[in-house]
Amino acid sequence: MSKSINVAIIGTGVVGSAFINQLKNIQSKSIAYNVILISRSSKALISQDYRPIDLTSWSDIVKSSSSPSLSNGELLSFLEKSPLPTVLVDNTSDANLASFYPTLIKHGISIATPNKKAFSSDLETWNEIFANSSSPNGGLVYHEATVGAGLPIIGTVRDMIETGDKIEKIEGIFSGTLSYIFNEFSTVVPNDTKFSEIVSIAKDLGYTEPDPRDDLNGLDVARKVTILARLAGFDVESPTSFPVQSLIPKPLESIESTSEFMQKLPSYDDDMKALKEEVEREKKVLRFVGKIDMDKKIVSVGVEKYDQSHPFASLKGSANVISIKTTRYSDPLIIQGAGAGAEVTAAGVLADTIKIAQRIAK
Amino acid sequence: MSKSINVAIIGTGVVGSAFINQLKNIQSKSIAYNVILISRSSKALISQDYRPIDLTSWSDIVKSSSSPSLSNGELLSFLEKSPLPTVLVDNTSDANLASFYPTLIKHGISIATPNKKAFSSDLETWNEIFANSSSPNGGLVYHEATVGAGLPIIGTVRDMIETGDKIEKIEGIFSGTLSYIFNEFSTVVPNDTKFSEIVSIAKDLGYTEPDPRDDLNGLDVARKVTILARLAGFDVESPTSFPVQSLIPKPLESIESTSEFMQKLPSYDDDMKALKEEVEREKKVLRFVGKIDMDKKIVSVGVEKYDQSHPFASLKGSANVISIKTTRYSDPLIIQGAGAGAEVTAAGVLADTIKIAQRIAK
Ligand SMILES: NC(=O)c1ccc[n+]([C@@H]2O[C@H](COP(=O)([O-])OP(=O)(O)OC[C@H]3O[C@@H](n4cnc5c(N)ncnc54)[C@H](OP(=O)(O)O)[C@@H]3O)[C@@H](O)[C@H]2O)c1
Ligand SMILES: NC(=O)c1ccc[n+]([C@@H]2O[C@H](COP(=O)([O-])OP(=O)(O)OC[C@H]3O[C@@H](n4cnc5c(N)ncnc54)[C@H](OP(=O)(O)O)[C@@H]3O)[C@@H](O)[C@H]2O)c1
Repeated sequence: MSKSINVAIIGTGVVGSAFINQLKNIQSKSIAYNVILISRSSKALISQDYRPIDLTSWSDIVKSSSSPSLSNGELLSFLEKSPLPTVLVDNTSDANLASFYPTLIKHGISIATPNKKAFSSDLETWNEIFANSSSPNGGLVYHEATVGAGLPIIGTVRDMIETGDKIEKIEGIFSGTLSYIFNEFSTVVPNDTKFSEIVSIAKDLGYTEPDPRDDLNGLDVARKVTILARLAGFDVESPTSFPVQSLIPKPLESIESTSEFMQKLPSYDDDMKALKEEVEREKKVLRFVGKIDMDKKIVSVGVEKYDQSHPFASLKGSANVISIKTTRYSDPLIIQGAGAGAEVTAAGVLADTIKIAQRIAK
Repeated sequence: MSKSINVAIIGTGVVGSAFINQLKNIQSKSIAYNVILISRSSKALISQDYRPIDLTSWSDIVKSSSSPSLSNGELLSFLEKSPLPTVLVDNTSDANLASFYPTLIKHGISIATPNKKAFSSDLETWNEIFANSSSPNGGLVYHEATVGAGLPIIGTVRDMIETGDKIEKIEGIFSGTLSYIFNEFSTVVPNDTKFSEIVSIAKDLGYTEPDPRDDLNGLDVARKVTILARLAGFDVESPTSFPVQSLIPKPLESIESTSEFMQKLPSYDDDMKALKEEVEREKKVLRFVGKIDMDKKIVSVGVEKYDQSHPFASLKGSANVISIKTTRYSDPLIIQGAGAGAEVTAAGVLADTIKIAQRIAK
């Protein structure tokens, strides 16, 4: 091994576990990835002397650890003293850790993460992250898995911008859950399935958040669209600063329990049915999309209709798809595939970690 | 500017010119790209003292240069003495320069190129390139634009392999020319256009090589498929070591002049017509594809039929498309868009150059 990098991993949930297992198995001839921290919300495994943690039975060791997890300040002072270049892999969805990225980056810590929070909240945090990253000793920031999981979206848009291309339009289906729901609900060969039934099936299959309203409110899509718009050069203030259509019927928004919500959702099936039948008469289908128009400076999230021959109409399962129209790609570049799932998301984060290591390992 | 890299550019044709113009216009706050050599086949502009060449009117200066272009040996000794890390950008399709990559890389010169030759010839050259590149002081090698021009294909397949995913199947349309010809010839709504007529139109539009047989023989696709198969871990010996279907009627292979070939092609239209009508009865279309099956260890290039609902059937213009099925992407990842053209190809090479610079600039 000619070079090494220290890796601090926060979050050992669905994505975090898959990440650690993938990292354990990669065979790099040229770079050693030394894990010096594995942390969950309440406890952490910390290599105080920065010697690599043995990953063979990491899960049990973390479980049995008696060290509490670190505060942001403790994390910084531990990572700052790391004798090797260091990458923090944030596999949580924690907003508090995300808000600390600018400080970490300023102190030379690089970040690889699928956590959307830091990139899709207020514009100031975004600007601070990338300003600090391009300062002389700033850490690097890679976040491919914040949009479309492992699909090569963020990297592709970045390459376009860096080589001088101009984004004109971006349009896509960015929620696996809403992709599934609309692919089943509004099909080229008309069907009779009710909207609430499909939501219920999606919930049973584990495709939705525990409360499906967290998907139906459109906010997750709005966060992804915020990230893409900012990459494209459009300074979107926040994910609530543009029109986002919620699929939650107004009267059901404030209901406390998920089960009561699920029970009442069928009473609104007629509205969705009417909409679906209307587009069927036009030989179209409904899809839940995010759109960015750089020329008109418009960003929006909601239900749109597409011709049956449009690539979005033939989407299956819970796939994501993005169509990117630029000055150079006047016929759009299209990327399609699984946009969620532990393995593909972890692979996106690991590919970022490798890219960082290739740049800074010593 | 905190860091710099020296850039030597060979080839100022369609892609080379676009590359230099894009390079001239990029705004990097952190890396200076100093061009120290611009060469065409017969003459070169050489910065003997390694001071950056002014790119304002590079084309005129190269034209009026009295220096002959460098031999491989002269190139190596010029680049070896470069006081900064150096990337060679090969924008030719020269086989002789390509065969010299292993030596350049061994001496620490990095390479960014759309030239397929080095990666799609004998397996030994491929192995030597990547062995030398991973040796302690070896140069880096990026060749995104050798398949699908600027589309993010090579990088995506590499990321999959490096993170431990396994390629199962790759299938795609890798020739813009043959994409156009079949998209026009075999359509979902049947048409009467003859095969030879479309070839003739494609030639007139400048979509084909000067002699369309250089597209119709399938060799360009075979080269791209060879590269993808090797990336996926299948040691293909050469682009002629697997079945490649040629669309040139046997008796027309040995005809000397292009115009005689074009004149005689219509006499073979009935064969293609019969094939087209056969698949029309099955509600299918014809496409010219490259396929890799890692399980069965089969690589092939030729005409295949696809259902009208298959993503390849709705392709338009001269777009490329690739479908990548892996262990993690059991529903394939699909990437589609322009796979040729000066600007998108140059952007692919420039994005590679930037990635190299981010790793080695000093
Ligand atoms: N799952 C996907 O398909 C997918 C796709 C794209 C992006 N993502 C993103 O990937 C990230 C992880 O998702 P996931 O599905 O793996 O979530 P998850 O299963 O809920 O796991 C979250 C993990 O983070 C830990 N955690 C939370 N707050 C923490 C804190 N302050 N300090 C230390 N650890 C903390 C949790 O600790 P405990 O174990 O102690 O609870 C848990 O291990 C999220 O940002 C998500 O949006 C996920
Ligand atoms: N065009 C596309 O859309 C596209 C797409 C993907 C990949 N590519 C690849 O990109 C590369 C360049 O294509 P292109 O369309 O730009 O070709 P091109 O227009 O024919 O230009 C080739 C250039 O290379 C120069 N050249 C050839 N041999 C040389 C040598 N030994 N030393 C120095 N210079 C030499 C030529 O010099 P002169 O100017 O003196 O003739 C010319 O400037 C090829 O490998 C091609 O396969 C092209």
